[in-house]
This record gives sequence, C-alpha cells and structure tokens, in this order.
Amino acid sequence: MTDRILLAHGSGGRLAHRLVDEAVIDALRNPILDRLDDAAVLELEGRIAFTTDSYVVSPIFFPGGDIGRLAVAGTVNDLSTSGARPRYLSLSLIIEEGLGRSELARVVSSIRATAEEAGVVIVTGDTKVVERGSVDRLYINTAGIGEIPAGVDVSGRNARPGDRVLLTGPVGDHGIAVMSVREGLRFGTSLVSDCAPLGGLVADLLAACPRIRCLRDPTRGGLATTLNELAAQSGVRIVVEEEKIPVRDEVAAACEMLGFDPLYVANEGKLVAVVDPRDAERVLAAMHAHPYGKDAAIIGRVENGPSGRVSMETRLGTTRLVDMLIGDLLPRIC
Amino acid sequence: MTDRILLAHGSGGRLAHRLVDEAVIDALRNPILDRLDDAAVLELEGRIAFTTDSYVVSPIFFPGGDIGRLAVAGTVNDLSTSGARPRYLSLSLIIEEGLGRSELARVVSSIRATAEEAGVVIVTGDTKVVERGSVDRLYINTAGIGEIPAGVDVSGRNARPGDRVLLTGPVGDHGIAVMSVREGLRFGTSLVSDCAPLGGLVADLLAACPRIRCLRDPTRGGLATTLNELAAQSGVRIVVEEEKIPVRDEVAAACEMLGFDPLYVANEGKLVAVVDPRDAERVLAAMHAHPYGKDAAIIGRVENGPSGRVSMETRLGTTRLVDMLIGDLLPRIC
Repeated sequence: MTDRILLAHGSGGRLAHRLVDEAVIDALRNPILDRLDDAAVLELEGRIAFTTDSYVVSPIFFPGGDIGRLAVAGTVNDLSTSGARPRYLSLSLIIEEGLGRSELARVVSSIRATAEEAGVVIVTGDTKVVERGSVDRLYINTAGIGEIPAGVDVSGRNARPGDRVLLTGPVGDHGIAVMSVREGLRFGTSLVSDCAPLGGLVADLLAACPRIRCLRDPTRGGLATTLNELAAQSGVRIVVEEEKIPVRDEVAAACEMLGFDPLYVANEGKLVAVVDPRDAERVLAAMHAHPYGKDAAIIGRVENGPSGRVSMETRLGTTRLVDMLIGDLLPRIC
Repeated sequence: MTDRILLAHGSGGRLAHRLVDEAVIDALRNPILDRLDDAAVLELEGRIAFTTDSYVVSPIFFPGGDIGRLAVAGTVNDLSTSGARPRYLSLSLIIEEGLGRSELARVVSSIRATAEEAGVVIVTGDTKVVERGSVDRLYINTAGIGEIPAGVDVSGRNARPGDRVLLTGPVGDHGIAVMSVREGLRFGTSLVSDCAPLGGLVADLLAACPRIRCLRDPTRGGLATTLNELAAQSGVRIVVEEEKIPVRDEVAAACEMLGFDPLYVANEGKLVAVVDPRDAERVLAAMHAHPYGKDAAIIGRVENGPSGRVSMETRLGTTRLVDMLIGDLLPRIC
C-alpha cells in the first residue's frame, strides 16, 4: 500500500473506488452521501441559491487555513451573501499523481471541520487523478445549494443613494498570509488568513435587519473590486473613507514591501454590506456581536452617479478614484 | 488584444471580468446568469437531484465531441440516471495561461449547443486562469440540479432478483474515439464518441415505465464497473450474456490492438437500465424509438447472490467473473 496517490486511483475502477471510499467518503460520512448514486436526492422548498467556485490556491496549506477550508468557506460565503441559508455542497477533487495520502487526509479533515462549522453537508462528489505535471498538486471545486428565507432579497443590484457601506473587519489578511509562504517569496509574519464560513454571521445580520440590500465577500480583486461590482450592478456611485477601512499593521507593512494596495488584496472571511442609513447602526452592532465581525466599521456611503464609479476620500483630504484591479496582482490566491 | 488567455485574465480584476463577460457570459446569456450575483436564485419544488463532475479529458477536442459537450452531457446524464429532469448547471473553468481564445470560444459554443439540446440553463459559474504547466490546457467542472417527478424512485439500490438488464447501445465508443487522437498513439478510425445528453431518452423511458428500478451511465470503468456498482449497491448478482452486448467492429479491433476489454472502456452516451421482467419489452421498445437507444438490447438478468458479483455467459458457453477494473486503463478519458 503506497502512501502516495497513483494514477490508477483515478481510473474509475476498484483502486479509485477504494481511494474515494477510504480517503473521502469515510471522513465525510452522512446518510445522503452514503447512497452512492450518481446524484444526491434532496428535499428543498421555495427559492434556492446555487453557486460554484474552483479553488487553485498555491500552496495548498497556508497560515490559518488550507485549500479544503477555503473550498468550503468560499462557496458557503457565496450562498450566504445571496441571503441564503447554506445547506448542501458538492465536492470535486482533481489530484496530481504523487500527492501524499496524508496530505489528502489533512485536506479532507479540514473540509469536514469547516462543513461542520458552517452547518452544511457534503452530499455528492467526484475524484479525478491526473498524471504528474497536469495539475499543481490539488484543485478543488465545490458547488453549493442554500435556501433563501421568505422576504429576503439580497442582491448586488439593490444599493440606493443614501445607503451606508459596512465592512466586517480588516482587509488583505488572506492574500498576504498566502503570499508569506509562497515559494520564492517567503517572509516572516504572524499573520493568518481570515478564511472562514460566514453563514452564522449573515444569519445574525439578517435577524437584526431582514431588509439588508447587498452582501458580498471581497475575495479575488479585494475590497476595491467588490465595491466596483456593487456600484456597477446597482448603477450608483460608492464613496469610501480611507481612514475608516481597517488594515492590520502586518498587512500594511507587507503591502508596502511588495508594492501592493491592500484594497486589492483578497479576503476570505470578510463581508461588505450595504444597508439603509436607518439600519446602519443596528447592523453594525450585530456585526460587533459576532466573532467574525468584531472589527466591523461603517466605511462609506452610496451616492447618485456617476454610475459604477467608486471613489475614496483619503487621509490627506483628497478624493481619488478606486478602479477595479486591471491586470494581475496575486495569481492563485484562492 | 492578444488571441491567447493571459494569467491576468484570472486575477479577479477588470481583465478577468472582460474575459468572462466576452468569452463566457455573452455566449451563455440568460436572465438568471445575467444577474451576476455570487449565487443564482432558482425556484424549485419537491425532491431535487444534485450532482457534480470535473472533466479533465485529453485532448480537449476529439472525434464526436469536446470537453465542453462532455461536461454538459456528463452532468446532465448523472441527473437523468437519478430519475430527475435536468434543469440548471453551474460551469467552472480552470484555464491554462496561453490557451487560444478561439479554442475557448469553440468549447463555450459547444457548451451552449449541448445545454440547448439537453434543455438545461447555465446559471452560475467561475473562471480561474493558472500559470503554464499548472493545468493541462483546460479543465471544466459542472454541477447540476434536476427535479425528480413525484412517484419516481430510481436508484442503484433497487435491483431485485428476476429483473432484466438493458443497455441502450454499443459499448466503448467514447474511450476508443479519444484514444484514437491521443498524442503518441493516434490511429485511424471512423469512430466517433457517443458523448450525448440523455435526458430526452430517460424522459421517454420513464413515460413508458415510471417504475424503472435503476439507471446508470457506464462512463469511467465502463459497463463492467457500472454492473459491479449496481450489484454491490443492491446486494444482488448480475449475469450478462456476452453475445447480447453490442460492440462496434472498430471498437473491437482497436481493443484487440491496444489490449483492452471493451467492457471496461468508457461510454458517454449510453444507459444501463434495470427493470422488472414484465416491463423489459416495453422499456426496450421505448429505447429503440429514440435515436440514442436505437441499438438497445436486453443483455442480462439479476439473480440472487453471491451479493455484488457480476458474471458473464461467454460465446463459448462458459461463465466468467466480470470484476471491476482494478488498475488503470485509460487515464483522462473524461
């Protein structure tokens, strides 16, 4: 019995079945997955949210998380930011021949723990093994299904002039934590990724204020890109105040060194919320009451046009345009 | 404007948005996808089937299909074989830096055409670009959601002694068609992949006989592996007759040359059905009436134990055990 994954483990035959049974299904065991049919059968009612992401982060283990935690949290968060209660995930692994069984076990164990934290169940999946050099160690795809409670209408299209923009905590932790251990770049920092499933936080926010207009998690492209997306989808202008946007000292220092702007660095455990001005303090209090929102702040406001424009009032008292990321900042950050 | 995909197209920034908008969303346009929120919002009722697969086929274009058609058909078929009516798909692309834009366009166009044929809508997605050598050209993940009509209970667990085993057509076409154009192996053949979405065929079969017990598409690991899965899940023995299993001459010849057994070669447009003996002729007639089932045959029967065992009555009059594929036959066939 080898301690590495072989190409034959991806063949669809008995070795493949054994790998999937031992390394994946045993660890994630639940009655729906145990049926082992080609599709899971679920009972759901009403409006459903459906989303997917592939995760290609390098390296697959990083301070504060790993590709497994990321793959569960990322898809859970895309459901949560649609106002849905995350319920079910699919899990698809593309494994490079030669990956250590112990590494796979560590990732699957992290998937289980994060799914438990998020209250989701992994109900269907797929495992492929490809020859050396045809994938970089391990990529994961998750798709997710959630239930949208009656009366909830959260969408990037809902921001209106006058609304307040809230952020649940400091930006850039995930991107800088991953960069700090990347081959050819390693630098010392105590920083860890913020990677976390935000379903519990979103449930608390919606309980405090069911009419939240927009929620989004600022992942690839960072806070700046998320604000640009919301401004474009809603056809409004968004203005943020530089001094209100929390950034950890370690992130600011690393960005200085690497020539990055923290506004463009990926987060994996933060939320941007747009709310009616009358709801802003109530939503902020609900954020502060949750461990994943304790450093939340009101960072800006929504204004009438120019549509799709984001600007920042700087510490110097000037105003500057915050564009979307143009080129390439941090490949394979998630 | 380059005609190749750049790493910056995967950054989450403006170039990435433009790639996704132009190359993917414009081609697949529909009202749900157009909302561009982090999750699609769907209206569904009752029991739902949910499935996923990643597609890593090499090469990405092959006789009779391409990775895009495969990715839609494969996931549609996993829904169909659960008795569900396929409705919605997610689409996640992992692209190697340097892939030609025209190749991507060709794949996306094939995705659109196959989704239209299958009557499914692509409602959410994700695009990642990774550096050269970190993926082999293009991998695709699709997840799918279907609705299971009331009264339908199709599962690999339902086979009972006395049932008949039906197959919709000749085995091995997909695997041999892909191998015929594989680097280092190319051989001339007029064979094309059977890759096709089978939702229409399954709907016809369920209309003819709503109490079909099991449906499965014999993909990776071939017919032999599928029969072993069904025998194990249902705790029964399955006996097939060699002379009843259709195999094209080109497939038989290629298998002879390559040292393969056609029973283990992947199919992407075939179905195995297990039905009550009283329903067998009716289901067979429904198969024959559909273009994707015109060469269907009753190939065997379900018997009492030994549980999980599959055996074949050969042309020579002997009986041999048909085990699951053990090692590695055809890597990256789907």
